[in-house]
Amino acid sequence: MLQIDEEVAKLLELKAQLGGDDGKHQFVLKTAKETLTGKYGEDSKLIYDLKDQGGELLSLRYDLTVPFARYLAMNKITNIKRYHIAKVYRRDNPAMTRGRYREFYQCDFDIAGQYDAMIPDAECLKIVHEILSELDLGDFRIKVNDRRILDGMFAVCGVPDDKFRTICSTVDKLDKMAWEDVKKEMVNEKGLSEEAADQIGEYVSMQGGMDLAERLLQDQKMSQSKQACAGLSDIKLLFSYLQLFQVTDKVVFDLSLARGLDYYTGIIYEAVLTQAGVAPVSTETPQGAPAEESVSVGSVAGGGRYDGLVGMFDPKGRKVPCVGVSIGIERVFSIMEQKAEASAEKVRTTEVQVMVASAQKNLLEERLKLVTELWKAGIKAEVMYKKNPKLLSQLQHCEESGIPLVAILGEQELKDGVVKLRVVSTREEFDICRAGLLDEIRRRTSEA
Amino acid sequence: MLQIDEEVAKLLELKAQLGGDDGKHQFVLKTAKETLTGKYGEDSKLIYDLKDQGGELLSLRYDLTVPFARYLAMNKITNIKRYHIAKVYRRDNPAMTRGRYREFYQCDFDIAGQYDAMIPDAECLKIVHEILSELDLGDFRIKVNDRRILDGMFAVCGVPDDKFRTICSTVDKLDKMAWEDVKKEMVNEKGLSEEAADQIGEYVSMQGGMDLAERLLQDQKMSQSKQACAGLSDIKLLFSYLQLFQVTDKVVFDLSLARGLDYYTGIIYEAVLTQAGVAPVSTETPQGAPAEESVSVGSVAGGGRYDGLVGMFDPKGRKVPCVGVSIGIERVFSIMEQKAEASAEKVRTTEVQVMVASAQKNLLEERLKLVTELWKAGIKAEVMYKKNPKLLSQLQHCEESGIPLVAILGEQELKDGVVKLRVVSTREEFDICRAGLLDEIRRRTSEA
Repeated sequence: MLQIDEEVAKLLELKAQLGGDDGKHQFVLKTAKETLTGKYGEDSKLIYDLKDQGGELLSLRYDLTVPFARYLAMNKITNIKRYHIAKVYRRDNPAMTRGRYREFYQCDFDIAGQYDAMIPDAECLKIVHEILSELDLGDFRIKVNDRRILDGMFAVCGVPDDKFRTICSTVDKLDKMAWEDVKKEMVNEKGLSEEAADQIGEYVSMQGGMDLAERLLQDQKMSQSKQACAGLSDIKLLFSYLQLFQVTDKVVFDLSLARGLDYYTGIIYEAVLTQAGVAPVSTETPQGAPAEESVSVGSVAGGGRYDGLVGMFDPKGRKVPCVGVSIGIERVFSIMEQKAEASAEKVRTTEVQVMVASAQKNLLEERLKLVTELWKAGIKAEVMYKKNPKLLSQLQHCEESGIPLVAILGEQELKDGVVKLRVVSTREEFDICRAGLLDEIRRRTSEA
Repeated sequence: MLQIDEEVAKLLELKAQLGGDDGKHQFVLKTAKETLTGKYGEDSKLIYDLKDQGGELLSLRYDLTVPFARYLAMNKITNIKRYHIAKVYRRDNPAMTRGRYREFYQCDFDIAGQYDAMIPDAECLKIVHEILSELDLGDFRIKVNDRRILDGMFAVCGVPDDKFRTICSTVDKLDKMAWEDVKKEMVNEKGLSEEAADQIGEYVSMQGGMDLAERLLQDQKMSQSKQACAGLSDIKLLFSYLQLFQVTDKVVFDLSLARGLDYYTGIIYEAVLTQAGVAPVSTETPQGAPAEESVSVGSVAGGGRYDGLVGMFDPKGRKVPCVGVSIGIERVFSIMEQKAEASAEKVRTTEVQVMVASAQKNLLEERLKLVTELWKAGIKAEVMYKKNPKLLSQLQHCEESGIPLVAILGEQELKDGVVKLRVVSTREEFDICRAGLLDEIRRRTSEA
């Protein structure tokens, strides 16, 4: 209660300093807060605010894309390619069971710079394809569309200009709502004519590859929109590069893909797992809005082209074209964990190669000496932090944590100038002379 | 201004819900905020507060130690060894020039578990020694002391019990203030008797190794404190392990080392660079309080034993002894950057091994095909994102970014079934048959 009083007092004081209610225009938003406003549309309510000691309004980053764009503008970087794995924050009601957290990791890859059309865009899709194939998460599809095709489609279907964004966010719900419900929202809630909605409905049911782009370029209505034609030509070009990259098996041109964020200006894409049996862990669409409840399997990657965002942070409005992708790393981890749990295989949580153990009491000094020797040689080794641990408990620890080798010291071994090397999996033991120990360990661990 | 009004309204509403000013005891602090309170002593004012949608009070983590302890308690983990590199937040006035930020990385290593005395503690010091040696930051010292020795010393010097903590934080200033000023603060500001201060002054000027611990165990005054004796015996034991770990050359038992945080219960340590000429970049003492301005060179690592912290989060107060170290990773990076800038050596910012280039126009397709082949083989390769880049600009890019090889495609090479492989450093060029290209690249990049 005291804290509330204090907060109120602080705020009122701040207000007084700013010159009362008339001082509206004296209230200047500083960089940190301003950076995030006006970039996320309806999702802005999820931005985490915090205040510094002076009552200055700050926010936690909502994603990695907007901070990346700000970074480019502030450091006058005109071309860069980089990845970034870090935490972002959403002022949301957490729902652990549905994998919706207030603090979670995002993993972004972006290419910024003035380049020829669709080459960096194709590389982003190649990277998504490679990651999802390598991680072996099951079958997947990468849906591709273009903001300009969507806008052109809305125009030729008779959607008023000022309704493009809101109709677009309704189309975005098609992956988790039936067309009938989406149409209802367009007509009843957003005031679109039934005719326009039906025309949209026809287009957004279309899926294909380069052939579909070619067909739509000939489409009587679609071809009337310059924007749509520009987008369709780029889709064609994109697919020609994707063929060279050998990834067209998984990529689908899908006119129902909308994605919610305001900052996209060209190509957009989203990767979904299609294998049945993978439970939807997170309903978070990366680089996008937190979705409601997803049907079947969720999105694991998403992104697109955002050519205007850097310019918004540059005092002179200088643009740096960007294209990027965000991997849903938390969702990917959940799936990998599920797989690991389901399989009998044990996941090692340590990289230790050798446990330095003792067979008798009073050998702590000898153990510490030997482990120092191994560390010095770059071998991953450990000792138990006990003066006189039992040999059995040392061996058990190795079995449990999957440490493959044990270097055992005993009175006799010390006298003979040897170390007993035990292979944990087979329980074989060999006396190795001290001088040859490092090589023997290296030989045995490089085999594994 | 509107935002302030909204905030005030929200807070007043919250206050009303809580039952007015009389409802003081109904105000329950939830986990997130409560976790951080009462752990940092005077530094608590630097905790970053934020509110969720319901007005719940939350905070950003202040360090990695308290969240680690909470994690152990909540997951009932009784032994673990782990490192953690992540961001922490301080609601401080940023001072970029002095390297003091509101958001910065910490890098912690901790060993939790009930073990025999000083073995994990010695390993932490061994790790600090190894890191600072490997990073080649110049000469360094690791100062060691024990909270129990400090407390015992205060007791035998006649410091009243309730002044231990505040006198301790004054002693902590000895690395950046002269003894005369420290004494003044003790006597004039903290009300200590001049006699007590002088006695402390004698002790805190002492530095040494195992011998000093032995001498102090015989010290007429010091030996009266059980606590001090326990700490001194452990320092002796610690040094015997450090000898086996071969790190005593850099470790000093220093009675002036205090460290500010409330949670330490045993051994404490701090590593400082001693080489002249290293500019003090950060005055932040890791795992500790942000210092004022440091003289000469700053602290690059610090830590200690905190046996009570996990128990504070356990409903039944079950303790898990812990010892850990925090590497001042931002400071270390600054020093490494300074060194890199000072040396003529160019730091590569990319790991790309091969640039796939073309000597003529209209070879984008061939470039994309070849780069796909290289990627498939696990070779780090890239192409310029242009349809028809000039050969010169492709080669220049390699020189600038240190890419060692260029695979050049031209009409003639395609006809002959070869690729021209150029070694950037020597500008030599070889025609390599397409079938042997991967092996040739692997051979040449593994050499480097």
